[in-house]
Amino acid sequence: MTELSPDIRAELERQAIELPSWAFGNSGTRFRVFGTPGTPRDPFEKIADAAQVHRYTALAPTVALHIPWDMCDFDDLRKHAEDHDVALGTINSNTFQDEDYKFGALTHEDDAIRQKAIDHHFACIDVMHATGSRDLKIWLAEGSNYPGQNDMRARQDRLQDSLQQIYARLGDDQRLVLEYKFFEPAFYHTDVPDWGTSYAQVASLGDKAMVCLDTGHHAPGTNIEFIVMQLLRLGKLGSFDFNSRFYADDDLIVGAADPFQLFRILFEVVRGGGLNNPDVAFMLDQCHNIEDKIPGQIRSVLNVQEMTARALLVDRDALAAAQTANDVLTANAVFMDAFYTDVRPALAAWRESRGLPSDPMAAYAASGYQQRIAADRVGGVQAGWGA
Amino acid sequence: MTELSPDIRAELERQAIELPSWAFGNSGTRFRVFGTPGTPRDPFEKIADAAQVHRYTALAPTVALHIPWDMCDFDDLRKHAEDHDVALGTINSNTFQDEDYKFGALTHEDDAIRQKAIDHHFACIDVMHATGSRDLKIWLAEGSNYPGQNDMRARQDRLQDSLQQIYARLGDDQRLVLEYKFFEPAFYHTDVPDWGTSYAQVASLGDKAMVCLDTGHHAPGTNIEFIVMQLLRLGKLGSFDFNSRFYADDDLIVGAADPFQLFRILFEVVRGGGLNNPDVAFMLDQCHNIEDKIPGQIRSVLNVQEMTARALLVDRDALAAAQTANDVLTANAVFMDAFYTDVRPALAAWRESRGLPSDPMAAYAASGYQQRIAADRVGGVQAGWGA
Amino acid sequence: MTELSPDIRAELERQAIELPSWAFGNSGTRFRVFGTPGTPRDPFEKIADAAQVHRYTALAPTVALHIPWDMCDFDDLRKHAEDHDVALGTINSNTFQDEDYKFGALTHEDDAIRQKAIDHHFACIDVMHATGSRDLKIWLAEGSNYPGQNDMRARQDRLQDSLQQIYARLGDDQRLVLEYKFFEPAFYHTDVPDWGTSYAQVASLGDKAMVCLDTGHHAPGTNIEFIVMQLLRLGKLGSFDFNSRFYADDDLIVGAADPFQLFRILFEVVRGGGLNNPDVAFMLDQCHNIEDKIPGQIRSVLNVQEMTARALLVDRDALAAAQTANDVLTANAVFMDAFYTDVRPALAAWRESRGLPSDPMAAYAASGYQQRIAADRVGGVQAGWGA
Amino acid sequence: MTELSPDIRAELERQAIELPSWAFGNSGTRFRVFGTPGTPRDPFEKIADAAQVHRYTALAPTVALHIPWDMCDFDDLRKHAEDHDVALGTINSNTFQDEDYKFGALTHEDDAIRQKAIDHHFACIDVMHATGSRDLKIWLAEGSNYPGQNDMRARQDRLQDSLQQIYARLGDDQRLVLEYKFFEPAFYHTDVPDWGTSYAQVASLGDKAMVCLDTGHHAPGTNIEFIVMQLLRLGKLGSFDFNSRFYADDDLIVGAADPFQLFRILFEVVRGGGLNNPDVAFMLDQCHNIEDKIPGQIRSVLNVQEMTARALLVDRDALAAAQTANDVLTANAVFMDAFYTDVRPALAAWRESRGLPSDPMAAYAASGYQQRIAADRVGGVQAGWGA
Repeated sequence: MTELSPDIRAELERQAIELPSWAFGNSGTRFRVFGTPGTPRDPFEKIADAAQVHRYTALAPTVALHIPWDMCDFDDLRKHAEDHDVALGTINSNTFQDEDYKFGALTHEDDAIRQKAIDHHFACIDVMHATGSRDLKIWLAEGSNYPGQNDMRARQDRLQDSLQQIYARLGDDQRLVLEYKFFEPAFYHTDVPDWGTSYAQVASLGDKAMVCLDTGHHAPGTNIEFIVMQLLRLGKLGSFDFNSRFYADDDLIVGAADPFQLFRILFEVVRGGGLNNPDVAFMLDQCHNIEDKIPGQIRSVLNVQEMTARALLVDRDALAAAQTANDVLTANAVFMDAFYTDVRPALAAWRESRGLPSDPMAAYAASGYQQRIAADRVGGVQAGWGA
Repeated sequence: MTELSPDIRAELERQAIELPSWAFGNSGTRFRVFGTPGTPRDPFEKIADAAQVHRYTALAPTVALHIPWDMCDFDDLRKHAEDHDVALGTINSNTFQDEDYKFGALTHEDDAIRQKAIDHHFACIDVMHATGSRDLKIWLAEGSNYPGQNDMRARQDRLQDSLQQIYARLGDDQRLVLEYKFFEPAFYHTDVPDWGTSYAQVASLGDKAMVCLDTGHHAPGTNIEFIVMQLLRLGKLGSFDFNSRFYADDDLIVGAADPFQLFRILFEVVRGGGLNNPDVAFMLDQCHNIEDKIPGQIRSVLNVQEMTARALLVDRDALAAAQTANDVLTANAVFMDAFYTDVRPALAAWRESRGLPSDPMAAYAASGYQQRIAADRVGGVQAGWGA
Repeated sequence: MTELSPDIRAELERQAIELPSWAFGNSGTRFRVFGTPGTPRDPFEKIADAAQVHRYTALAPTVALHIPWDMCDFDDLRKHAEDHDVALGTINSNTFQDEDYKFGALTHEDDAIRQKAIDHHFACIDVMHATGSRDLKIWLAEGSNYPGQNDMRARQDRLQDSLQQIYARLGDDQRLVLEYKFFEPAFYHTDVPDWGTSYAQVASLGDKAMVCLDTGHHAPGTNIEFIVMQLLRLGKLGSFDFNSRFYADDDLIVGAADPFQLFRILFEVVRGGGLNNPDVAFMLDQCHNIEDKIPGQIRSVLNVQEMTARALLVDRDALAAAQTANDVLTANAVFMDAFYTDVRPALAAWRESRGLPSDPMAAYAASGYQQRIAADRVGGVQAGWGA
Repeated sequence: MTELSPDIRAELERQAIELPSWAFGNSGTRFRVFGTPGTPRDPFEKIADAAQVHRYTALAPTVALHIPWDMCDFDDLRKHAEDHDVALGTINSNTFQDEDYKFGALTHEDDAIRQKAIDHHFACIDVMHATGSRDLKIWLAEGSNYPGQNDMRARQDRLQDSLQQIYARLGDDQRLVLEYKFFEPAFYHTDVPDWGTSYAQVASLGDKAMVCLDTGHHAPGTNIEFIVMQLLRLGKLGSFDFNSRFYADDDLIVGAADPFQLFRILFEVVRGGGLNNPDVAFMLDQCHNIEDKIPGQIRSVLNVQEMTARALLVDRDALAAAQTANDVLTANAVFMDAFYTDVRPALAAWRESRGLPSDPMAAYAASGYQQRIAADRVGGVQAGWGA
C-alpha cells in the first residue's frame, strides 16, 4: 500500500474545505427542480446537514451562507453551528433574484437600483460582523442578452465604483472576493466574464480584494491550472469554488467530470504555495440535482482530499530534473505516476488512526441520518435556490 | 432600392413560421424567472397574443401547443384560434417535469414509468386528432449527470422500443419528429444528443418519422448548415426549431447572435428544396426572458423572412460558375453580396402592397395591445414553463 | 496489490493495437517540424522501430502503412516485417498532398481529378493484396474554407459515388473504413465532419463499409463514449484511431489529456462487445512532435492496456444493481472505483510472468536502441508527413 | 442610397490598416502548403504586392515585416517601399523556428537559449531603427504539450525577466506589443494564452508595453468585443491582428466567418475611442491558403472599411436612450439597423470621388498584375512561412 509521509499527512490534516449552505437545498435546471426527501427547510437544518459532512470526514469545518437565502438570527445560527462542531464562513451576496435587478445591480444605470445593490452588500458586511466571517464573496449575474442592449464600458466603470464603495466598508480583517463567470444567466455579455476582468477590478481596489476562481466558469478548453498558477503568482487568488463540468456551469461533484484536471489544479496549488494558505480559501459550489445532497458533499470533500494527496505525492525533484533535461516523457511520467497512485487505502487507514470512519460514505449511509431527516422534515417549504 | 423579383415574392408570400405557445409565457434561467406584465394566464390568451404576430406580419398562421401546459378543451381552443385567424399546429410532448421522470421517461428502466411516458404520447396523439395537428414533436430531456449512472446502450434500445410504440399509434397523415440536443438538462450524457442519433432512431421507424433540428442544440463550432444539407439530402429534415445562441441553448431571438449563420442555413434550405416544402416545418423555439414577448416574436419572424429574402437573392448561376472554376474569392463574393444586400426597404414596400404595415414592430407598438393586456391581465397565474 | 482475474488476463493477452508507420517519422505543426535524431528514412526503418514497441509490450503486432508515403516493394516490406515479428496492417490512402487535390479529391467537381483520387484508392487496394491487409482506411482532408466556396450537397453526392466505386473494388475479405473529422485542414466545411455523415455514407455502401472513430476528431465537449456505444449498437464501428487532445486535433499520446475519458471509452467498448472483436480494430494515430517517437508509442500502447484493465475491473453486477435502483452516487462510485484502481503493479507482474519486461519504458531506454539509431541514421532524408 | 456623413467620411479617410508581409507568401496547414503562381520570392516582391492593395484602396499604407523571414538590406527595402508609396511598419520577431527553440525561447530554462531569444529581439529593435518602425510585436509560440512537461510558474517569471530586458532596449518612441493566443503550436499550455496574462505581463513593464489582440486567438464562444472594451478602458490595447475563424486559429479573411462579430468589435473600438487612435494599430494577420493572396488582402481591408462604416452609422443617441430605458428590443434594433445597412454603394461613390476605383477587386483583377507576376516570377524559391 502506498505510504503517506508524515509531511503529507500533516498537510492533509490541516486541509479544510468550506461547504455551501445552498448545496443542501433543492436545485435543478430551468426545466425542473426535483425535490428530495429530507431537504432542509431553514438555515439551521442546513447547518445540521453540513455538520454531518464534517463529522465523517473532518474536512469541512465551516459553512458558507447565502444572503438573503439564509437570513435569520445570526447569533442563534452561530451558536447552533458551534453546537454542531462547525463554524460559519464566507458570506455570499445575491443580486440576481430581486425584480429590480432584471437589468443589473452593481452595474445598473439607475442610481437608485445600484445603490440598493450596494446597500445589500453593506448588509452582508453587517452579517459578517455577526457571524465572524472574513470573506464577502460576490458573484454577479449581471450582463445582457442582446448586442446593443447595454453599454458594456459604462457598466464596467459603474462596477468599479460600486466595488470601491463596498470595499471601503470592509473591516480590517475582512476581504472581498470577486468571482468571474463565462456566461449564464446572461447570454450575450457578462460583466465579469473572465479572470482578467476580475483581476483588473480587484487590483484597483486594494490588498483586501481578491479573485474567486470557480472551476466551472470558463470557456471550453480553458487551461484552468494555468490561471491558478497565474493568480497565485500575482498574489490574487482569494478562493476556489470547486465543482466539475462537462459542458457549461454544470455544477457537478468536484472531480467527477475530469479527475485529472482536478489533479493538475491541485498540483499548481501545491507548487504555488496555495495549499493550507489562509489567503486561499477552498470552497465547494455544487448542485446536487438528482443525487442525495449530504453524501454528495461527503463524496466531494473526499475527492478533493484524495486528489490533494496525489498532488502531494508528485516527486518534485524527479520532476524538476526531467523538466530541466526537457525529457518530455519522463517529466510526464513522474507527473502521471502520482495521479495513478491509489491513495485510497492509505487515506482510509490514516482516517481510522484519527478516530474517523475509514469509509465516510459507508459510515454516513449506515448512520440512518438520511432516513431520519426524510421522516422528520415533512411540512414546511424545502430550501432551494430562491429560499 | 433592391428589387424583389416576382419569383422571390411568390416564395416569401408562401412562407409560414409556426409560433410556440410557450414563448408568450414567462421564462428564465435556473437563477430566476422574471415576470412581464400582461403575460397570458391560459392557452386562450397565448393564442390571442400569437395572433397579434400573424396580424402584423402574415407570417405566423399557426401556433404549436405544449402538453400538458396547454391542456384545455381543444374544440374551444381550435375555434378560438380560428376566431383569431390562426390555427393550431404541432403538438409538443413533455416528459421532463413529472416527478416520475427524474431519471428518464421513454428510456426509463422501470417499465411502469416508461409506459406512463408512452401513454403520455398516446394522449398527445389524441390531442392531435382534436386539434387537427399533423406533427408530434418529441424533445427528450433524458440522460444522466454522472459517468456510470446509467447504461447508455440499454437506454438507447428502450428508446427505440418506446418510439416504435408511439409511431404505431400515429394516424396516416400524422408524423413524429424527434429533436436532438447536445446537453441540458442532463450534464453527462443525453439520450438523443446529435443528429446522427436522431437520424438512426427515426430511420428505423419509417417514413413518417423525421428529425427536428433546433438551431441552438449543437456543440460549439458545429457547422449547422451542413447538417441541414445532409438531412435534406437524406430526406429526413422534418422541422426546424429556430432560435439563436452565443454559448449553450441560449434560446435567443433567431438571427440575433449570428445573422450570417442564419443566412447560410436558409441558403441550404433553398438549395436543398426545403423552402415552402410541406415536409419541412419552420418553427420558433425561443425564450424571451427579459424582452417583451409579442414584439420578440414579431422580430423573430421578420428576421427569418428578411434572411430568407437574402438567401433567395443569391445569384445561383454566378455562384455555380465561380464554384466550378474554384474561384474562391468570387464564389464567396457572390454569396456575401446577397447577405449584405439590405432587403428591408423592398420588404417594407411589398408589405404595404399587401395591406400589411410596412413596419410591423412599429405598428404593433402603436396598437396599444401591450398596454391593454398589461392592464387587463391582473390576477391569476401567469403562464410559464411548468404551467 | 490488485489482482487481475484469469478472465481479465485472457482479454488482455488477446489485445492488439496497431501502430501507424507515420508516428515514427517527424511531425509538427504548420509553424515548424522539429527533427529528432534517429528518425527513419524509409518504410523499412519505420517497421524496425515499430517492432521495438511490440518487442517490449507484446501489444503491437501490426503496423499500418500510409500510401504513398510508404511506397516500396511490398513483398520485401512484408518479409522485413515478418523478420521483425510484426505484420503489415491497415492501408491508409492520401488525397491531401497532391497539387490536384487543392480543392477536393473524392468530392472534386472535375471528373478527371476525382477519377485520379478513385484510382489512388484502387492502387491502395492493390497494395492491400500485396501486403495481406484487410482494411482500407479513408480519411478525407476535403472541404472548403469560405462560405459559398463550394456546393456542399453536390460534393456529398459525388463522395457517395466515389465511395461506391472504391467499395466495388474491395476483395471479399476486405473492408473500407471511413474516418470523420470535425475540421482541419478545411476551416469552413469538411465533407465528412461527424459520425452521422460517416455512418450515412457507409450504411448505403454495404456490410464491408464501416466507420472509423478518431478520438481527436470531435467538437469541444462531445461525449465520445456515447458515439462508441451508438456505433457498436448499429454494428458500424470499424476501427479506432486513438490519441488525445486538449483543444483541436492535437494528436497527443492517447490517455495523456483526459485519462478518465479513455476509461469511459474503453468501458463502452467492453460493454458493447467491441473488445478483442475482430470487427473493431484498435489503432494509434498520433504525432510525437517533441517527444521521442518509439517510447512515445510504447507509452501509448501501455496507456491503452492499463485503461483496458481498469475498464475490465468494473464490477458490472454492482453497477447494474445501482443503476437499476437509480442510486446515482453508488453507481458512479462503482465506476470510479475501477478507474482509481492502480493496475500497474499487477500488469508489471503479469508481464514478467509472460517473459516480458515489467517496465517496458525502462527496458527500451536501457536497450541502447535509441542511441544506436541516432548514431546510425545520418544522411538521407528523415521520414515525415509528406515522405 | 445610404449617405455617409462628412464626419463618417473623415474617419474613414484617416483609416489605415497594416498588411503583413507574410500574407503574400505561401501558407497552409501541417498537412500541406499548396503553392500559388506569382508568389513573391523575397521581401521586395512582397512589398510590391502589398503596394497593390494600397493602390486600389488607399487603406493600407504600411507593411509589417517578419524577422528573420524578411531579412535584407533595410535601407534598400525602405526606399523600395517609398517608391511603391507604402512604408515599413511593425517588426515581428520569430522565436518558433530555430531548432534551439523546440522547448521555449523567452521562457527557456537554459539561460543560453533564453539569451539567444532576447538577443533576437535586440536585433529586431535594430531593424526597427533601420526601418523607422515604432512597434515590436511579440507572439510567442512557447508552451508545452504534456502535463508536467514544464514548470509553468517558473516560465512565467522568466518571461517577465526576458520582456524587461527587451523593454529596456526600446527607444523612446518605440513600443512593445505582446500578443496572446489560446493554443497552437503548443497543445497543453501556452505561456501567454489569454488577455489577462498579456495584460499582467505588460502592465508591469511600463507605458510603452501594450497588448496585441488577434481576433482568432480565443477560446470558443469568447466575447471578443468585451475584451476590446476592457483593454481600451485599461489603456492597454496596442494593436489588432485581424482575421476570422470558425474553429481554431483558422486565419481566414477578416469578416468572412462572422461579419456581425467584426461589427461588434469595431463598434466597441469606436465607442472606446480606439478608431484612428495612434495608440491602437490595425493590422491583418491572415493566411491565404487556397485563395489568391493580393485580392485576398484587398477583400480584407475592404471588409474592415465597410464594417467600420457600419459601426460609425450606429445612432448613438437613439441607442443610449433605448439602453437607459432598458428597452431591449429597441436598443438591439438600433444596433442591428446599422449592421444591416448596405454601405457598399455609398463607399463606392466616395471612392470614385477620391480618384479611387469604385470596385477595387474588379480594378485589380482588370489590371493584369496577377497574370504578370505569375509569368514573371518563375524560378527562385517562393516565400512562405519559414522563408
